[in-house]
Amino acid sequence: NPATGENKFYGEWLPNAQGEDVVAGIRTPNPLNEECKGPENAHLPSLETAMPEVYEQLCKIREKLEKHYKDMQDIEFTIERGRLWMLQTRVGKRNGPAAVKMAVDMCNEGLIDKETAIMRVKPSQLDELLHPMVDPEAERKARPLAKGLPAGPGGGTGQVVFTADDAERWFKEGKKVVLVRTETSPEDVHGMHAAEAILTARGGMTSHAALVARGWGKCCIVGCGALNIDVEKKQMTVDGKVIKEGDWITLNGTRGIVYEGQLPLVEPNLEKNEEYKQLMTWADEIRKLGVRTNADRPKDAAQARAFGAEGIGLCRTEHMFFEPSRIRAMREMIVAETREERRKAVMKLLPYQREDFKGILKAMEGFPVTIRLLDPPLHEFVNLTDSQIKDLARELGVSYEKLKARIDSLHEANPMLGHRGCRLGISYPEITEMQARAIFEATAELVKEGHKVFPEVMVPLVGILSELKNQAEIIHRIAREVMEETGVQFKYSVGTMIEIPRACVTADQIAQEAEFFSFGTNDLTQTTFGFSRDDIGTFLPEYLNRAILKKDPFQTIDQEGVGELMKIGVQKGRATRPDLKIGICGEHGGDPDSIDFCHRIGLNYVSCSPFRVPIARLAAAQAAVRNK
Amino acid sequence: NPATGENKFYGEWLPNAQGEDVVAGIRTPNPLNEECKGPENAHLPSLETAMPEVYEQLCKIREKLEKHYKDMQDIEFTIERGRLWMLQTRVGKRNGPAAVKMAVDMCNEGLIDKETAIMRVKPSQLDELLHPMVDPEAERKARPLAKGLPAGPGGGTGQVVFTADDAERWFKEGKKVVLVRTETSPEDVHGMHAAEAILTARGGMTSHAALVARGWGKCCIVGCGALNIDVEKKQMTVDGKVIKEGDWITLNGTRGIVYEGQLPLVEPNLEKNEEYKQLMTWADEIRKLGVRTNADRPKDAAQARAFGAEGIGLCRTEHMFFEPSRIRAMREMIVAETREERRKAVMKLLPYQREDFKGILKAMEGFPVTIRLLDPPLHEFVNLTDSQIKDLARELGVSYEKLKARIDSLHEANPMLGHRGCRLGISYPEITEMQARAIFEATAELVKEGHKVFPEVMVPLVGILSELKNQAEIIHRIAREVMEETGVQFKYSVGTMIEIPRACVTADQIAQEAEFFSFGTNDLTQTTFGFSRDDIGTFLPEYLNRAILKKDPFQTIDQEGVGELMKIGVQKGRATRPDLKIGICGEHGGDPDSIDFCHRIGLNYVSCSPFRVPIARLAAAQAAVRNK
Repeated sequence: NPATGENKFYGEWLPNAQGEDVVAGIRTPNPLNEECKGPENAHLPSLETAMPEVYEQLCKIREKLEKHYKDMQDIEFTIERGRLWMLQTRVGKRNGPAAVKMAVDMCNEGLIDKETAIMRVKPSQLDELLHPMVDPEAERKARPLAKGLPAGPGGGTGQVVFTADDAERWFKEGKKVVLVRTETSPEDVHGMHAAEAILTARGGMTSHAALVARGWGKCCIVGCGALNIDVEKKQMTVDGKVIKEGDWITLNGTRGIVYEGQLPLVEPNLEKNEEYKQLMTWADEIRKLGVRTNADRPKDAAQARAFGAEGIGLCRTEHMFFEPSRIRAMREMIVAETREERRKAVMKLLPYQREDFKGILKAMEGFPVTIRLLDPPLHEFVNLTDSQIKDLARELGVSYEKLKARIDSLHEANPMLGHRGCRLGISYPEITEMQARAIFEATAELVKEGHKVFPEVMVPLVGILSELKNQAEIIHRIAREVMEETGVQFKYSVGTMIEIPRACVTADQIAQEAEFFSFGTNDLTQTTFGFSRDDIGTFLPEYLNRAILKKDPFQTIDQEGVGELMKIGVQKGRATRPDLKIGICGEHGGDPDSIDFCHRIGLNYVSCSPFRVPIARLAAAQAAVRNK
Repeated sequence: NPATGENKFYGEWLPNAQGEDVVAGIRTPNPLNEECKGPENAHLPSLETAMPEVYEQLCKIREKLEKHYKDMQDIEFTIERGRLWMLQTRVGKRNGPAAVKMAVDMCNEGLIDKETAIMRVKPSQLDELLHPMVDPEAERKARPLAKGLPAGPGGGTGQVVFTADDAERWFKEGKKVVLVRTETSPEDVHGMHAAEAILTARGGMTSHAALVARGWGKCCIVGCGALNIDVEKKQMTVDGKVIKEGDWITLNGTRGIVYEGQLPLVEPNLEKNEEYKQLMTWADEIRKLGVRTNADRPKDAAQARAFGAEGIGLCRTEHMFFEPSRIRAMREMIVAETREERRKAVMKLLPYQREDFKGILKAMEGFPVTIRLLDPPLHEFVNLTDSQIKDLARELGVSYEKLKARIDSLHEANPMLGHRGCRLGISYPEITEMQARAIFEATAELVKEGHKVFPEVMVPLVGILSELKNQAEIIHRIAREVMEETGVQFKYSVGTMIEIPRACVTADQIAQEAEFFSFGTNDLTQTTFGFSRDDIGTFLPEYLNRAILKKDPFQTIDQEGVGELMKIGVQKGRATRPDLKIGICGEHGGDPDSIDFCHRIGLNYVSCSPFRVPIARLAAAQAAVRNK
């Protein structure tokens, strides 16, 4: 049975007809046997009862074929005047749950070995086991309201809200909400987090909403152009129909379809899926690559851990600054004129950050947690309208003109290549000091409480050894200070993102200071191609259509270009430091083809969003089998 | 004599004093001999007359020392009670003209060989021989009006104008003008070209004005903050003084000083400088690297040729579109909605471009001319104010809203990494077709007229072999068409800029299609470091101050990073095509350290702005000597 994976003979037959009639679907076919009767064909005679000898004969042939091919077969036959004629046999298609069950069953029956079982399941098929899905029966009967891009898989249902603050408030009141926005920005993150699902009118598969939702494994549909959203009135019109705040909608994020009303969801139940658990155990035995997760919050870390993550490969710290209670201090820092003022403002963030890190280190207890220091350009924190600037000026006690001028001075022609990453930490060492202190104070407290935690401090956007030296000096000094102040000894390491080409070609130098490397393949792809991910919409679709590029290099690592630089980075890095730990934390860490490449160039681990962890575990095992 | 290079004993002495008194300059020292008397010390007795025996003794020692060290010596001595005591001797400092004369004279006298002579002159010292200079005598007496950054060397004097159009009009009336602007943009280029010198209130050493002026060897001062320019009133105030349109000012671009009034200039006279000519002949014998020039106009090409350029390494075509008569067609193209409309607009540019190319190919007759296809993002052509957009909409017969929307749609988050270079030619093949046709029609006409011309068509920003294939297919097709239409056979080649990291690491593939490579080290430096040249002002000065970087990588090639990628590009390119011609056309092509590096990695030529050609010839010879 290709839908459940049970070892049952499953099929259809149609008397007095040709194959085309089955395919065309103009008549309801008869069931093959009594077992596979469903509500739609229960009234029709099965082959088993209508022609028992032919059915018997067919069973034997099927058994012989499946023994021979060691896999489920999709068999075509015809019966002419009581005589069975075999037309065709091929490996049968199956859905995710069925693929897992069949592979494990066949292995348990001794038909195939573990490695073959591992290879029988496409990593992407696991998605169907991980997310709640809209009940197919209910979905079949529902009428779609609109279509968009399937940005985050699975199903989600809830009451519509139109602002992030409403989403958070309703969520706290115990309601399930779907956050509907024209597009999202970092300031919406708290509301996105509170929502069951996210729906936007604009944006593509790599828009802010899509990236955040996939990172959390949250159901999300973007670029749903049919929505006319009126935030003031708290309603939207879709094709003439008005949907108000509080109305229920349901999203199928795997297919990109929006429905009116509340459709039932089918919850995944991995804990009870013995075949899935068995398959993943085999995968873990076989794979050489470690699998970590990208997570910024304890909840996500715990989720990833449940999915089998062996640590955090990327904990971004900038999201932590966008919560309303914190961004104020960040803005104060940006406006500060003297180092002392700046330090005072930055240090207001210390207690928040310490709690953040404590939570996440504890959630990953026993495993390493790589924490990346502040990365984005400062202007992302002051993306304000004129009236917001006026409010902020009043709050901070500076003139509007002065604040406006400061904000304008942060404008950059190419922010992707601007004042960000470790360049910020070098210009404003107090940011690095505060973050290092928060990490180490959290670590010391946890160690004191008896927890086993391993923070790895990661400096972003390093291209020059001296940049890393500058930042590492600060981090090591703060570590010593915190050890002295608390009297607690703890383990930690300092390493760097490898995300610009210069870091790859000078990796031998950088490894003098770095205790680990983590390839940031998002930025490395941008700089290696000279592509801005924000701007490729104007030409990348055409490049793919015309096969100038075979795959989107932001989805799957470009092995010839970006991959070549990675290889150079690995070779040079290990030439200096043979035991250098090297991972990858770009979006590619969850892509099966990219994982295969990472295996081949000898990385130690891949890191991906929580819901891709099982996929990465399986893909890593397949890479080990494929490249034995 | 360290000022002229004549082999004359030149010096000073001071009776009844210590060395500090000479250095302190509190007393006017006596002349050493009768020959080196000047107006300021003619009344004082020379050592030659005051103590003839001591003078004789000193002459002999000097002769012995200079024979021994084979170079001019800076000798310190003291005379105590009639007895000569030698204190110190070291190689004497000298200015540019003196360095050249001494090196050539000593070689001609057999004291040193040609290679040593070549090494005796610093390439940068040649600047003093190439540009008109403000008469030092007059400058000493003049009072500076303001100071700025020395962006373009030499001196310039003219009447002040405040707009590019005025500069051009006054120039056509036979006047000498200095163009004064707050800052310049590509639309000012015609006026900058007409001006004797350029002065801006804002901008740094890599601002638009600075880059363009250096490219032309034009006197230029930028970032002169003291200027308060009022374009409406056509005047500026400097420190309370009002300078009106038509007033004379004089610029010393080597020192960055602005003077009121018209100071006399000293013109260089290379033709009559036999020692210079001799030195360059030796340099040409010794060097292995070819030296080409970056030039967009026949006049610049001719200038570079006079300086010894052996072809054009980079002829940019975008400057050609900014002239008022042409930009209209460019804008029409940008607004066009259908391919047909776009083609019609683009083809209006064909006759202009054909004349451009004809002029430049003819000026470089006998040498190759590398023409780069359109490179900048389209929004650079529609950098307009709201009222300009309204005017343009009226002219083009479209609505303001529509035009505004189209212009807004061209906005990019990171234009440096956006829709530009060959990505434009792939999206809009009609641009490539027009440019290829203009090049080949110009070539065919010139060949018919009996000229020997060798166009090399260069595709910019290639990172993927298939991009180059796409563009090369168009170029070869147009070449065949033009040959058929005109019945003229001509030589040409198709190659590519190597300016993004992916091109370096896949150079083996790209060389399958490219007949030549030219390293675009400006963009390659931006992408290798992940630095935007427009935005580095916020952190690069600090990086240099704190020695995180030892040199500005936009001035001198970063050999460890960018240079490593260049090496990979050369090796991989020649692995596919052993006779691949490889050059460099970034700003680094005129920097002596970078030229040394280019020699070592086996490039065929460097290309630089016309006024750096002699410098590059000398630096290339020094590289050959140094790396024998």
